[in-house]
Amino acid sequence: MNKHKIITFGEILMRLSPPNTKRFTQTQQLDINFGGAEANVAASLGNFGLNVEMVSALPNHDLADEAIRFLKRYDVNTKNIIRKDGRLGVYFAEGASMHRGGKVIYDRSDSSFTQLEVDTFNWEEIFNDASWFHWSGITPAVSENAALICEKAIQKANEMGLKVSMDYNFRAKLWKWGKSDTEVMPNLMKGCHVMSGIHPDVDVLKDEVSDEAFAQSGQELMDKNPNCQVVVFSSRGVKSANHHTWAGALYDGKKVYRSKKYELTHIVDRIGGGDAFMAGIIYGLNTYDNLQPVIDFAIASSSLKHGIEGDFNAVSKEEVLQLMESDGGAKVSR
Amino acid sequence: MNKHKIITFGEILMRLSPPNTKRFTQTQQLDINFGGAEANVAASLGNFGLNVEMVSALPNHDLADEAIRFLKRYDVNTKNIIRKDGRLGVYFAEGASMHRGGKVIYDRSDSSFTQLEVDTFNWEEIFNDASWFHWSGITPAVSENAALICEKAIQKANEMGLKVSMDYNFRAKLWKWGKSDTEVMPNLMKGCHVMSGIHPDVDVLKDEVSDEAFAQSGQELMDKNPNCQVVVFSSRGVKSANHHTWAGALYDGKKVYRSKKYELTHIVDRIGGGDAFMAGIIYGLNTYDNLQPVIDFAIASSSLKHGIEGDFNAVSKEEVLQLMESDGGAKVSR
Amino acid sequence: MNKHKIITFGEILMRLSPPNTKRFTQTQQLDINFGGAEANVAASLGNFGLNVEMVSALPNHDLADEAIRFLKRYDVNTKNIIRKDGRLGVYFAEGASMHRGGKVIYDRSDSSFTQLEVDTFNWEEIFNDASWFHWSGITPAVSENAALICEKAIQKANEMGLKVSMDYNFRAKLWKWGKSDTEVMPNLMKGCHVMSGIHPDVDVLKDEVSDEAFAQSGQELMDKNPNCQVVVFSSRGVKSANHHTWAGALYDGKKVYRSKKYELTHIVDRIGGGDAFMAGIIYGLNTYDNLQPVIDFAIASSSLKHGIEGDFNAVSKEEVLQLMESDGGAKVSR
Amino acid sequence: MNKHKIITFGEILMRLSPPNTKRFTQTQQLDINFGGAEANVAASLGNFGLNVEMVSALPNHDLADEAIRFLKRYDVNTKNIIRKDGRLGVYFAEGASMHRGGKVIYDRSDSSFTQLEVDTFNWEEIFNDASWFHWSGITPAVSENAALICEKAIQKANEMGLKVSMDYNFRAKLWKWGKSDTEVMPNLMKGCHVMSGIHPDVDVLKDEVSDEAFAQSGQELMDKNPNCQVVVFSSRGVKSANHHTWAGALYDGKKVYRSKKYELTHIVDRIGGGDAFMAGIIYGLNTYDNLQPVIDFAIASSSLKHGIEGDFNAVSKEEVLQLMESDGGAKVSR
Amino acid sequence: MNKHKIITFGEILMRLSPPNTKRFTQTQQLDINFGGAEANVAASLGNFGLNVEMVSALPNHDLADEAIRFLKRYDVNTKNIIRKDGRLGVYFAEGASMHRGGKVIYDRSDSSFTQLEVDTFNWEEIFNDASWFHWSGITPAVSENAALICEKAIQKANEMGLKVSMDYNFRAKLWKWGKSDTEVMPNLMKGCHVMSGIHPDVDVLKDEVSDEAFAQSGQELMDKNPNCQVVVFSSRGVKSANHHTWAGALYDGKKVYRSKKYELTHIVDRIGGGDAFMAGIIYGLNTYDNLQPVIDFAIASSSLKHGIEGDFNAVSKEEVLQLMESDGGAKVSR
Amino acid sequence: MNKHKIITFGEILMRLSPPNTKRFTQTQQLDINFGGAEANVAASLGNFGLNVEMVSALPNHDLADEAIRFLKRYDVNTKNIIRKDGRLGVYFAEGASMHRGGKVIYDRSDSSFTQLEVDTFNWEEIFNDASWFHWSGITPAVSENAALICEKAIQKANEMGLKVSMDYNFRAKLWKWGKSDTEVMPNLMKGCHVMSGIHPDVDVLKDEVSDEAFAQSGQELMDKNPNCQVVVFSSRGVKSANHHTWAGALYDGKKVYRSKKYELTHIVDRIGGGDAFMAGIIYGLNTYDNLQPVIDFAIASSSLKHGIEGDFNAVSKEEVLQLMESDGGAKVSR
Repeated sequence: MNKHKIITFGEILMRLSPPNTKRFTQTQQLDINFGGAEANVAASLGNFGLNVEMVSALPNHDLADEAIRFLKRYDVNTKNIIRKDGRLGVYFAEGASMHRGGKVIYDRSDSSFTQLEVDTFNWEEIFNDASWFHWSGITPAVSENAALICEKAIQKANEMGLKVSMDYNFRAKLWKWGKSDTEVMPNLMKGCHVMSGIHPDVDVLKDEVSDEAFAQSGQELMDKNPNCQVVVFSSRGVKSANHHTWAGALYDGKKVYRSKKYELTHIVDRIGGGDAFMAGIIYGLNTYDNLQPVIDFAIASSSLKHGIEGDFNAVSKEEVLQLMESDGGAKVSR
Repeated sequence: MNKHKIITFGEILMRLSPPNTKRFTQTQQLDINFGGAEANVAASLGNFGLNVEMVSALPNHDLADEAIRFLKRYDVNTKNIIRKDGRLGVYFAEGASMHRGGKVIYDRSDSSFTQLEVDTFNWEEIFNDASWFHWSGITPAVSENAALICEKAIQKANEMGLKVSMDYNFRAKLWKWGKSDTEVMPNLMKGCHVMSGIHPDVDVLKDEVSDEAFAQSGQELMDKNPNCQVVVFSSRGVKSANHHTWAGALYDGKKVYRSKKYELTHIVDRIGGGDAFMAGIIYGLNTYDNLQPVIDFAIASSSLKHGIEGDFNAVSKEEVLQLMESDGGAKVSR
Repeated sequence: MNKHKIITFGEILMRLSPPNTKRFTQTQQLDINFGGAEANVAASLGNFGLNVEMVSALPNHDLADEAIRFLKRYDVNTKNIIRKDGRLGVYFAEGASMHRGGKVIYDRSDSSFTQLEVDTFNWEEIFNDASWFHWSGITPAVSENAALICEKAIQKANEMGLKVSMDYNFRAKLWKWGKSDTEVMPNLMKGCHVMSGIHPDVDVLKDEVSDEAFAQSGQELMDKNPNCQVVVFSSRGVKSANHHTWAGALYDGKKVYRSKKYELTHIVDRIGGGDAFMAGIIYGLNTYDNLQPVIDFAIASSSLKHGIEGDFNAVSKEEVLQLMESDGGAKVSR
Repeated sequence: MNKHKIITFGEILMRLSPPNTKRFTQTQQLDINFGGAEANVAASLGNFGLNVEMVSALPNHDLADEAIRFLKRYDVNTKNIIRKDGRLGVYFAEGASMHRGGKVIYDRSDSSFTQLEVDTFNWEEIFNDASWFHWSGITPAVSENAALICEKAIQKANEMGLKVSMDYNFRAKLWKWGKSDTEVMPNLMKGCHVMSGIHPDVDVLKDEVSDEAFAQSGQELMDKNPNCQVVVFSSRGVKSANHHTWAGALYDGKKVYRSKKYELTHIVDRIGGGDAFMAGIIYGLNTYDNLQPVIDFAIASSSLKHGIEGDFNAVSKEEVLQLMESDGGAKVSR
Repeated sequence: MNKHKIITFGEILMRLSPPNTKRFTQTQQLDINFGGAEANVAASLGNFGLNVEMVSALPNHDLADEAIRFLKRYDVNTKNIIRKDGRLGVYFAEGASMHRGGKVIYDRSDSSFTQLEVDTFNWEEIFNDASWFHWSGITPAVSENAALICEKAIQKANEMGLKVSMDYNFRAKLWKWGKSDTEVMPNLMKGCHVMSGIHPDVDVLKDEVSDEAFAQSGQELMDKNPNCQVVVFSSRGVKSANHHTWAGALYDGKKVYRSKKYELTHIVDRIGGGDAFMAGIIYGLNTYDNLQPVIDFAIASSSLKHGIEGDFNAVSKEEVLQLMESDGGAKVSR
Repeated sequence: MNKHKIITFGEILMRLSPPNTKRFTQTQQLDINFGGAEANVAASLGNFGLNVEMVSALPNHDLADEAIRFLKRYDVNTKNIIRKDGRLGVYFAEGASMHRGGKVIYDRSDSSFTQLEVDTFNWEEIFNDASWFHWSGITPAVSENAALICEKAIQKANEMGLKVSMDYNFRAKLWKWGKSDTEVMPNLMKGCHVMSGIHPDVDVLKDEVSDEAFAQSGQELMDKNPNCQVVVFSSRGVKSANHHTWAGALYDGKKVYRSKKYELTHIVDRIGGGDAFMAGIIYGLNTYDNLQPVIDFAIASSSLKHGIEGDFNAVSKEEVLQLMESDGGAKVSR
């Protein structure tokens, strides 16, 4: 399923962060990065060489122009990002350090995206040359209209034969428009073929999650969502802000495929790690015939993300493949 | 009228700007400054050694804490800045350069301040040890409740014998809540003793505004607002973003007092120039027995503002006095 | 002649500069900007909303990727930028300050562009949906092959009915491959419809160049190059590195059209000023029916360039129009 | 003992450091932080919400103003910081990295603080609404007069019923005025109720210090200083500059209370770790009825300090409590 | 008199400045520059290619090492800079901007240099291969011993046939050790052959100082100091911090030689301008046979200094010559 | 063999790197460092106090001047660095992070050094007061002439009784001029007394290399190169970009001397680690009578290099000795 276009739908955010390990109270400057769950996926896919397009909404000012330019840099088609009233969603993110967690101040209310009208997008046209549609649980969380548009898109995608992937991405602070995720998401998930699962409740630093546990958790999702063909899991163990473990699993209804488990020390920035994983899954499913390299690629690429500032996983396909094939060490190439 | 407290009421904003002469499209970082018309006045007055307090509202997060810490640094009392739901008002400001104007992207909708409840503040208590109340036309512009609170405060201030000063500060982009400035401001101005006037329509680069023109314009304001005792004017001539002229006038119903006219070349940052002027007027009226030094102090201090990054006029009283007494040159003291 | 594509051909360079007014001996960091005469023109045209494509060659590494991403940001089509052996052309540029001139260390020898093979590009295909071709005198200066390709492109453009524009852009340090500009350029200019002229030898700070002088100089070029329909002149007067005058003239064989003369003080970066002028000319000729706004637009946009760091003229069409219609002052819009 | 004011007495220093891991020989800039043992304690206590005041002396110039503004930001009362002749104490601190230790160049001789006159402060007035007095062994080290003032303050504090705490803080480079710490400190310690002890000589990386050893060491201090009610110990094990262990113990004459032992990897800045510990002890003793949370709070808060640039422990009470209650991992809250 | 070594004697200082136009209250970083009147002269002379050595004293720590490395970079011999107890002299310098003067906080008391022992240097050995000795009025100002050493050096220089030059460099804040400049300097000046004069009291912005006035002022100095052969004057007119005029004159007992008068706009940093002038004079007297190019070179080189950050005049001999020969404009060389 | 001069011959490069952990695609600035295998060795030796000179070639422009000034800062004699046509060799180096390797873009073709003429240097004169000559395998890799000059120098050094040391430093990307290292190096190695060996193929993270293996490998080199007296080995184990192990061994034909094995976590910059090792070997052989401290010094100093930004090992001899004598921890000295 390799040539056709992949469509993502979601909000693009400006992230503003104190440089390095500085705290909000210590800085006179904020670093700018653009991101958002689906934008991160889109930029990764474009950077890996797939044909990808982001559907979204932004206000009409210079900083929103920059959000679009960020996507253009990585070959994401932006022609269906409409410009309208409302704000550019912002989030302020202070980095984690040692035993101190990261701190996020969301400032994305009343953004152009949350105020989208339900009939704004012509999904039939957008999906015309597409084979895949990706969304995350953040999109229906931000406003009722966003949820309704998402529903429409999923329905049309299914009608037109696209594969649909979803990252649950639960953010408690975002579901404020009247309904909870448990009321909204089940219906949307019905139309999905690939989805992220929640790993069984096990301390991944100490114990290994068994294949059986993953299989059971994945099967439950498949039972509830008959379209679902693949469930993916990422498992994070947190020793400190700078030292995690990171591993993945994929269940296809028959078998559990496991990645190796990476020891992530000297972490630079964990934000976007999950999006990098999801992008890796989509890339893999659109590239490989077998499932083992899919989960291997996804975990290798998202491991690399932890060494990169900003939301976006600025690594090349070649670098991911190199890590997949290596023993984990990192050498200077010269 | 020197010992008592001066109260200001208004919104505190976080300003985010590209460094130096960079444009939004060129920067990966934004410099943080805190400001807002009344906050700038308050910080200047605290820095000049007057007893000053700011009444406002902010959300309850780390960046709003920094807004308060900025005021504390300059000895502004912040005990009546309440913390509540809503956003921290932000504005993105790109600097002007040569023939290119500055660019402001307001992002202050739905801030904690605009969502203030009408009965939040106990003005009787706040004004207890105060002798002066200052507000600007930005406050009633941002929301109906802010306008209503402003009206209450002005009324209570008059009842309790405080002097009230006002800076008109018209911002077309802000009056969005249903009424225009011409519907709201006249009533509020009735309770003011000191106000900024609009200078007569003359090209200040080419022609001098006559004393008669200032007097006539001031007298019209006084006729409409019988409480008004002093009208102040600042006159800006713009040759390019880096080269202005700057002069002031003050009318007390009898006579026009003129400042010298400064040739402002090599301007660093003009934002906050008007607030620095207003702070100078309030400082002067609370310090000097005569009116000539009032306008001289206000124009000298606001001239210095143009050489300082950020909204706030980070100059000492001594530096203003030194400029007032000098011929305008600037020497290294060593 | 508004809808069709504009093609530029030339080298893309990485410029590395000490920040602000620092000298090479004072800095531990160099700022990165991408530029080059034709790339600057292309990015400006893309940014102004025209359909534009750059034909070039770059090596295959991460920094060359960034050169391409720079163009993508401003909607320049890059599909005909080939990747091949050779270097990424670099130039180190130290800013001018007061009475000290700027300093350029060229490091562009043996770049991928200079080593292009003569038959690399299929101009017939490239020009398929194009109406305009632009090149500058820097391109034939860097290597014999570049000169030969340029000749081919001009010939094919003429065959296919495109308009051809040229900026003479003489750089003494570049003509090293065996022939001088006077041996090579005349032949290339024969195929051009729009070209930059050298203004008559007059001190533009003191004396005005007369219409007659411009007309005579332009007419001489037209006499030698019968295809030529428009000759444009930019006149720079240099009082110091931070203070220039800047004006333009356009001759169409009948009449001289003059721009206003801008007093440019507080100059931030003059590099790219000529390219911004040429982009303005091309934009104007592709937009306006009359010639007066063409020269006005070109001089206004290139005046704005002097207030912007880097080679590229990061201004919007709206900002140029605003300056054209204003009296030259620069105001904050809020 | 929760409502009354805490008074600290000591010198405020400006720390100047190369950014990040740069060495003195590699940098063109120095980062400014304000600190000093007692100032760090005071700022922490103010930031945790206690009523705190710093007594000190500074010269009368702009950088000393900034030292005071630093304290104001964190709600430390500064009205008894006098301004007088002498220098602002400075120390240049190069960060440690891997197996390279940090490097400190003291430049604090002849500071305003060291030149204090013995009768400058009216301690009776200063202690009027206070319940606690804190000092460290750095204060008597810097000059004879500082030692004498310290003695006076301790005596008056005891007369007026304040609790007195002390951090031994031995710095060999500082005791230069004629007497050694062993001649001066014993007398001062007699008036102290809470003091830091020196942990028994055990390799904390390899072996655990036994409760008995802590108790014995604490009891010896109590025997010599009959006023002493609490002795606290912090134990640091150093694997490399970026990897320490950190644990604490508290002895109240009856029992040893132990904190958990933190594995501190990816250390950002260890300077101020001991001050953060002492501030935690004072906060705890002024907040909790039991002693276990006192040592837990102190070690958790000082562990967080190691992840923060600068001398001051810029963490909130809530962040410390969160770490105390967690298993040590650090998560992004969103 | 071209081949022999030039010896300077004076203190080397570390200057710490807020970046760009920032004030002390606005910055979290300070830029490092090394300077001092005689060090600036020495570095300029080394940079211009003369054989130069600096005699001084510094403490023995890493930042003092950097002071020496700064001189080595510009080929100043440092073998007679002794290392001893005491501080590294520091000065904090905030830049001037528009109508605000620069601000200097001296922190050079008790430096290693001020505490030099009188017999430290063996001048006979130091002057062995030298032909010139330069000092400034700052040296005898900082301590009695520095004054005595200076006296010794001047005497020995005269005995050994060296030319001696002096820059008066009066700094009111420095003469604190017991005697005033008027008590100390006359004796030292007796042994000088070249000295800076104080220009007659005329407003150089409005009126030209006449040749007669310069001649009279110079002749008075020569009458008092019979060794004196050349008196040089620099005249600064200050319109604002960013706009000065700058001109020079030289009197040889017979005739007044005048430089052209430079209009210095867009000034970056005026500190070190006088030292750059003096270095230009010494360079000129050691290079040219005539006196006109001496004053021309000195004023051209010191004009360039105003466009350069830091104390040191980082310009090449070629750049000075280019300005001397040009009409003052500044062009990019490419 | 302590007093005489050490001569190095090789190319000096400018390294341009994104700051901190940024990637090429994320940065607008590049940090400048100067380096190159032999330059790094020379600067280390100068910094350790040995008499050292670098022979090389550079172009004649401001950035090449800075390369020379970098060496002067650390007391490297530069009088035999000739200036000629050609480029300044550049390499762009992106830092490694976690599991991502470092990335080097070489841009050193056609440098002045590669274009050296074979008879440029008078080695007899250069070696006049020298006792040691050092070169690395990078020098003969860059051009045929460089290889020929290297051969000449080695031959002359042997004639004149100098010791010759060599670091193999194989870089696959560099051997482009026609011959491979295996064709060229053996002949050059014949004249060497000290050389780096390749450690036997063992995973140094898991298994210890045995003394026998080192001895065997060393003996093979000695058998092929009868002049060879000392072979040194450095062993690097790579867990991730930020975590290596590092150990060394030295074989003198009789015995293997082993250093301790350092656990290098939190690595800042590994580039130059091998050069720091080689400098340590040369320093040790010129300082110690026994061989054990030679390998201990070399490994301790190169361990410290990993905590320092840039190519050059900016540590003092004292810091190396302190680490040699310590247990590896790093303490703040104060």
